Amino acid sequence: MTPEDGDAILRDYFAPWIQDLGLRVEEVGERHAVVRLPWSEALTRAGGGLCGQAMMAAADTATVVAVSSARGGFVPMTTVQQSTTFQRPVTGKDLLVHVRITKLGKTLAFSEITLTPDGATDPAAQASTVYAILG
Amino acid sequence: MTPEDGDAILRDYFAPWIQDLGLRVEEVGERHAVVRLPWSEALTRAGGGLCGQAMMAAADTATVVAVSSARGGFVPMTTVQQSTTFQRPVTGKDLLVHVRITKLGKTLAFSEITLTPDGATDPAAQASTVYAILG
Amino acid sequence: MTPEDGDAILRDYFAPWIQDLGLRVEEVGERHAVVRLPWSEALTRAGGGLCGQAMMAAADTATVVAVSSARGGFVPMTTVQQSTTFQRPVTGKDLLVHVRITKLGKTLAFSEITLTPDGATDPAAQASTVYAILG
Amino acid sequence: MTPEDGDAILRDYFAPWIQDLGLRVEEVGERHAVVRLPWSEALTRAGGGLCGQAMMAAADTATVVAVSSARGGFVPMTTVQQSTTFQRPVTGKDLLVHVRITKLGKTLAFSEITLTPDGATDPAAQASTVYAILG
Repeated sequence: MTPEDGDAILRDYFAPWIQDLGLRVEEVGERHAVVRLPWSEALTRAGGGLCGQAMMAAADTATVVAVSSARGGFVPMTTVQQSTTFQRPVTGKDLLVHVRITKLGKTLAFSEITLTPDGATDPAAQASTVYAILG
Repeated sequence: MTPEDGDAILRDYFAPWIQDLGLRVEEVGERHAVVRLPWSEALTRAGGGLCGQAMMAAADTATVVAVSSARGGFVPMTTVQQSTTFQRPVTGKDLLVHVRITKLGKTLAFSEITLTPDGATDPAAQASTVYAILG
Repeated sequence: MTPEDGDAILRDYFAPWIQDLGLRVEEVGERHAVVRLPWSEALTRAGGGLCGQAMMAAADTATVVAVSSARGGFVPMTTVQQSTTFQRPVTGKDLLVHVRITKLGKTLAFSEITLTPDGATDPAAQASTVYAILG
Repeated sequence: MTPEDGDAILRDYFAPWIQDLGLRVEEVGERHAVVRLPWSEALTRAGGGLCGQAMMAAADTATVVAVSSARGGFVPMTTVQQSTTFQRPVTGKDLLVHVRITKLGKTLAFSEITLTPDGATDPAAQASTVYAILG
């Protein structure tokens, strides 16, 4: 899979409301993916920071790209569980969403996701996801 | 607080992308809130089900309404942690988001959230949230 | 299944270190179970409160009893995910662990667990568990 | 702080039932700690694998060592939230518990924990913890 294949997955399988996030696949690999969430006023809550809901949505969505990449192409899958911690506010920066698959089983996949503002080293948020693979 | 006050919170403090969900406050109380997520094609992923990202966003957003109601009005707060399990697909139905505050401390609030399709008894998803209260 | 059957499951399938908790099944039903964690100095951390690790262990263990009860008897299963929030200290009281199965699928079971000191109404902790059913 | 200081924290602040785990601090640093959970039959469930409850307890306990190390010594703290995923069974091996502090705030600390059998590369479990720092 290439980043372009990842972008095609974002375009083909996700809700219009998720398309509105403008996510772009930067990198895909055997056990990881990097997705960019561009900074946007539309995602900004009172106070000027990126809303946490967009971070959770980006983490979930990026996992689908990473699991697809690990499987060599899109497979039907569904989120079983997501846990997210919110650690630092994000203002005026794209967010880079790094997904690392820690276990790719036949029916369950596990990922760790780090969300870091572009150019920063400390994460804004961390997430873990469990996916059921249906195909 | 009244449901109208809750709707005003949704309008005044959330990102435009969250406004797009069309959430409406149905009920507020001393330790709970009920928020409706109207069914919408814009929130529908491939396969025709409501996207899980909208469920997570609705749970998070509804918690702000519930904590505000418990405090008698909006106070600045920020999500610390959210855990969500996805249990059943939702198709063609509004989702009712019931938030129950289980602990309202001075600096931390804890909630349990059940997301149930309108008219159903079994939940589509369950969530827990931890919020830091800043004001 | 009876509470005695639940106690037999605790005795037959759990590690000696878990037996040391002294858990006792109080109630089992079609979609729930109640397990008692007796107060014990051995579970007390510096400061005199019940250690959180015992609460997590009790929530996990009680889920096995509840899923077994829902299935009419013990079936092999394994924890996939557990999320726990710690809300109030517990001192000098047994802890009642109420498990409610919210979804019993063929391969995955989902539960919500409330841990409340005996005689209290506010929870000390809340947990959610996802189990993979292997048999 | 040295590993010996970490061992002293384990001895001084934890419940006798946690002492029974036999945890030993291998490494402490400015933002991390490594703790060893020795293999023991007492922690073995039916089927011969290490019980998940011991993994959750080890992750929680090791976080206290890591936060203390990051603060230069023990400070009173309490777990707010822990999320754990269970990915692979462990049999006959010590478990190495690597804690990485991703945010050390004045009142909240966030950690990511990876639990890996000694000599293995793939994790048995992953966890995230949120702690409230009281001192």
